[in-house]
Amino acid sequence: MITKFIAPEIIFGEEAIQQTGESFLRLGAQRVLIVSDPGVAEAGWTEKAIHSLTEASLTYISYFEATTNPQVKEVEKGAQIYIENECEAVLGVGGGSALDVAKAIAVLVNNGGRIEDYEGIDKINKPLPPTIMISTTSGSGSEVSQFAIILDPARKKKMTIVSKSLVPDIAIVDPFTLMTKDSLLTAATGLDVLTHAIEAYVSVAATPLTDVQAIRSMELAERYLRPSVASKTNLEAKKAMAMSSLQAGLAFSNAILGAVHAMSHAIGGQYELSHGEINSILLPHVMEFNFIAAPERFAHIGTIFCKQEYSDRRIDYGRTAIAAIRNLADDIGAPKTLREAGLKKPDYELMADIALNDACMVTNPRDVTKKDIEQLLQNAY
Amino acid sequence: MITKFIAPEIIFGEEAIQQTGESFLRLGAQRVLIVSDPGVAEAGWTEKAIHSLTEASLTYISYFEATTNPQVKEVEKGAQIYIENECEAVLGVGGGSALDVAKAIAVLVNNGGRIEDYEGIDKINKPLPPTIMISTTSGSGSEVSQFAIILDPARKKKMTIVSKSLVPDIAIVDPFTLMTKDSLLTAATGLDVLTHAIEAYVSVAATPLTDVQAIRSMELAERYLRPSVASKTNLEAKKAMAMSSLQAGLAFSNAILGAVHAMSHAIGGQYELSHGEINSILLPHVMEFNFIAAPERFAHIGTIFCKQEYSDRRIDYGRTAIAAIRNLADDIGAPKTLREAGLKKPDYELMADIALNDACMVTNPRDVTKKDIEQLLQNAY
Repeated sequence: MITKFIAPEIIFGEEAIQQTGESFLRLGAQRVLIVSDPGVAEAGWTEKAIHSLTEASLTYISYFEATTNPQVKEVEKGAQIYIENECEAVLGVGGGSALDVAKAIAVLVNNGGRIEDYEGIDKINKPLPPTIMISTTSGSGSEVSQFAIILDPARKKKMTIVSKSLVPDIAIVDPFTLMTKDSLLTAATGLDVLTHAIEAYVSVAATPLTDVQAIRSMELAERYLRPSVASKTNLEAKKAMAMSSLQAGLAFSNAILGAVHAMSHAIGGQYELSHGEINSILLPHVMEFNFIAAPERFAHIGTIFCKQEYSDRRIDYGRTAIAAIRNLADDIGAPKTLREAGLKKPDYELMADIALNDACMVTNPRDVTKKDIEQLLQNAY
Repeated sequence: MITKFIAPEIIFGEEAIQQTGESFLRLGAQRVLIVSDPGVAEAGWTEKAIHSLTEASLTYISYFEATTNPQVKEVEKGAQIYIENECEAVLGVGGGSALDVAKAIAVLVNNGGRIEDYEGIDKINKPLPPTIMISTTSGSGSEVSQFAIILDPARKKKMTIVSKSLVPDIAIVDPFTLMTKDSLLTAATGLDVLTHAIEAYVSVAATPLTDVQAIRSMELAERYLRPSVASKTNLEAKKAMAMSSLQAGLAFSNAILGAVHAMSHAIGGQYELSHGEINSILLPHVMEFNFIAAPERFAHIGTIFCKQEYSDRRIDYGRTAIAAIRNLADDIGAPKTLREAGLKKPDYELMADIALNDACMVTNPRDVTKKDIEQLLQNAY
């Protein structure tokens, strides 16, 4: 079996944003398109990045119109602005949404066509312009991943685009940015991190190189997610969750994900809901379903979340893991059901159809039928 | 504090060499300089790489003259061949020596000057041509690292060149290549791996991203180094040691090393000795010296090598680690003293002077004086 692993250069730490300008210089770029969203801009993070660009004598164009579930038209508009202004590089600043738009823009400007053409795995042929991604939410892992998720409203579908080309040249993570997130967003993005780590760890494409990252990510989330939700100013917890997110990103970017994300993308294409919340609701249900496919791995997750030593009582430890994840989500106030999360009159059959064809379903450890997905959605409703 | 991490794209597994041609196509290169050594070529690994290049319709020039402790003139000759033949990319095939020559050639052809100009940290300004490194010894970690070590015979000095630019674009590791190594080379390179992992783990530049790699590398070496030395055909052990080497490489490339390597470079510049053997002789002595700088980390190493649970009896565990490393080296027949390894009439003062100024000394966890080094060398003689 061949193991592949790819990661961007990583710059992690307090005030890491100050290295943005210098980093673009190293990549040989002079004129940068900055992609962000209004909330992140208001919090002052884009300003910090701009300050660093200006200090390095670089020029820039701002495009701060990314939305929570970013759409095809946002990518197209950004690409047009890039081309009209003769930019040479793309800087994303924000959470997964802004970074995914930034990455998709970089695809379009060098590859042409429509972003829909690149849906699926390895459809991008030409290299992208230099890209740097500054993560401000520590949830999506987009700053290190091969993934971009873009909503196609015409088909009511979240497209999963997977390609090595989508791994940015440089990922910048500054834990200070997490101190402006409210507790709801901290909980939702934290549970997204946990879902990344768990799905990557039990993925059929997991490797020793992704396992070490996934395990460490879970250990950090187990210890620091609760205090991070509890306090905006607990810098130790913010640093730990930023690292947890980064390590989960390195794991899932290379091991891919599973049924939680396939279903979550299907739901997210149809309904305007929080991606992190949907994941956290689906996660224990899918863990129960996947359990028999990888009992040893679920037992290991049990030892992390229950802080007990692994023995050969595998079944018990696996079940303990699932209960522990439920407790954690409860403790930080995550909704328990899709209904609670705002899902109304779900069309189970349609969503099951879409989920079954999502790129993330390929690496789920247990074989999945359409009927299985319908049942899981009903359980989670 | 800012944490930085950089790694090449990694392709790991049986027959991974077959992906060489396709990988160069992705990097946009058509004409490749292949750098290797006569032994590796004889074992048939360069032929496999050439087969893959030819299948991808690429052309190549062979330069198979790297030696065990590669010298400045080998780099200069290779660069000349590259330029005369209008090559566009560099492929290294071999152990650390061949890969370091390949990387140094890539530096010269795009940066000009003499290779001595780039000694030290971050002296390389222009990007390198596309580089792919195929590791066939699983010791040096050169296929993933920011390092190249080149001997300057004029100064009798092993130059340490450290730069992000030296991280190859793609690292290819095929565990099958380890099945042609004899037990002596397997032992020496395995102990080199162990030294990388331990020095990176206790380095002052260690980060959570390097720790997970260093720890996993030690766990694998603890379990698989003995059986790998025992048998050429134990593929499970070869795979594990190849992964251990890769993970140690990822760790030390980013956390740098310490006094063992600083001293080993100093000795290697003066005397023609095996780098792996020198490291393994120095390692327990330096561990004893460094112990008080990082008792918790040494205790953790103790838990890995003694398979016992960590308690708060730190001193005992740390000492256990050192004894365990000595046992491991004994078991696989490594020499115990520098005298046994062939070192004759050492000039302690001269070597201490050189070691003190080696780039690797900066990250040693305990402050080191010239007198300390002289004492350590005497202890190890």
